[in-house]
Amino acid sequence: MTPSSSPPDASSPIGVFDSGIGGLTVAHAIMRRLPAERLVYFGDTARVPYGPKSPDTVRRYSREITAYLLGEGVKAIVVACNTATAHALPALQAELPVPVIGVVDPGARAAVAASRSRHIGVIGTEGTINSRAYHRAIDRIAPDARIDGTACPLFVPLIEEGWLDHPATRLVAEEYLGRHRVSGIDTLVLGCTHYPLLKSLLGTVLPGVALIDSAAETAEETARMLAEHGLEAAPESGDRDADDPSPHRFIASDDAEQFLKLSQRFLGRTVERVETRTLG
Amino acid sequence: MTPSSSPPDASSPIGVFDSGIGGLTVAHAIMRRLPAERLVYFGDTARVPYGPKSPDTVRRYSREITAYLLGEGVKAIVVACNTATAHALPALQAELPVPVIGVVDPGARAAVAASRSRHIGVIGTEGTINSRAYHRAIDRIAPDARIDGTACPLFVPLIEEGWLDHPATRLVAEEYLGRHRVSGIDTLVLGCTHYPLLKSLLGTVLPGVALIDSAAETAEETARMLAEHGLEAAPESGDRDADDPSPHRFIASDDAEQFLKLSQRFLGRTVERVETRTLG
Repeated sequence: MTPSSSPPDASSPIGVFDSGIGGLTVAHAIMRRLPAERLVYFGDTARVPYGPKSPDTVRRYSREITAYLLGEGVKAIVVACNTATAHALPALQAELPVPVIGVVDPGARAAVAASRSRHIGVIGTEGTINSRAYHRAIDRIAPDARIDGTACPLFVPLIEEGWLDHPATRLVAEEYLGRHRVSGIDTLVLGCTHYPLLKSLLGTVLPGVALIDSAAETAEETARMLAEHGLEAAPESGDRDADDPSPHRFIASDDAEQFLKLSQRFLGRTVERVETRTLG
Repeated sequence: MTPSSSPPDASSPIGVFDSGIGGLTVAHAIMRRLPAERLVYFGDTARVPYGPKSPDTVRRYSREITAYLLGEGVKAIVVACNTATAHALPALQAELPVPVIGVVDPGARAAVAASRSRHIGVIGTEGTINSRAYHRAIDRIAPDARIDGTACPLFVPLIEEGWLDHPATRLVAEEYLGRHRVSGIDTLVLGCTHYPLLKSLLGTVLPGVALIDSAAETAEETARMLAEHGLEAAPESGDRDADDPSPHRFIASDDAEQFLKLSQRFLGRTVERVETRTLG
């Protein structure tokens, strides 16, 4: 694929972006749900993480990335990053000429569907939690729900270090979440695309609590969005290069090494080629 | 101070930069060693951390920051970030019209002075350790020294979370450094400007090992550099505004909030005003 100057249509790819590699968990769910679609995934690895950064800065970065993706001819955009969704989704939806969805509304819907006690915990980066984006999204669907947010800034570095079941990770999870064993929540939204990798450990810290990973629900929402706009790729559509083993493109703003190293863990398969593109 | 178009002279400020706020430990040492000097401190909080990023990206960011500092009329530059020193110092020294020093050579000198066993440990970010900058710097002074480097990517997030004496931090330090209780090192270089905040905890993990914090030695090197170039501020020099309580400027690339929140811990005093400047 080279950048296209013709307007996007149903055969065009979907743009997916994240601050780094966490959004690959969402890309993976979309690939499984919509096998006819091609994705252009952008990971802003030169400026990751977004979690501690200000709303203005995250919006600026999100605008730069979506401008780039539009230049690559995408027909729709999935913001596969909770922090970017929390800070930038309304602006992107207002400004961009293609449909845009984020990960917060799908996660909120799945949480409300899972919760019986109507007491729902949310974990995420400082940016996501401080934005109260999940509070608002859950409140719109279930105004009677009680929502309890906790910023967990150490989870992303622990996951990127690969310490998915390390005693230190368990101690950190205890510190952040131990109180929820008696708080009465029955559902916990994993409000960061990295966190699904901690599902097994978190399940032992909070036994009996439903852990909500928004990736699958975001893939459903992507399918609905494409159908609504008549943008579903036909199974045989797309001018795929028969020599190209993968219909998807992966682009990082820093060099490919870190992306390649970590992508297997998030995508569940090996990425063979990562393009690099400097932004900002 | 407004940007100056006249060439810098002895009365001009010193530029100090870091990926974020860690370099304030170095700025603090310079302020104490050279009370007549004014500093312009730049923290690239919009793109922090540099540790996991590629050498090319860190060099690009360092060039953008030093171009900005030169525009602010600095007479010399201190790279108060180990990762930026490791990846960018030679390029900056070759390209810039003012003297530039980093934190690696001063730390290496202090380590060699402290070590009797000539077996020296170095800890830092992945970028700093992979660059082998400390290995080269120590080897130039003490070719007989044995050097043992360990990347400790979780220390910076733990410090920024304020968990300076948390059991999880102790467990992480044990995992990274426990082997050094029997490895034979007698000196450990804290090769990241955040790490001095862990000195007390690391002292209990590695009793009897000298912990080298390059801040004081970098302040000495700054004094030598200014003397060598005839750039020492006279005690009465500088066109200081009598109404300005502080002769120093602090600039961040993201908004001021996080900087203000964390600066007290690193600088040992409150920063009253942080300017913001978008780069890249």
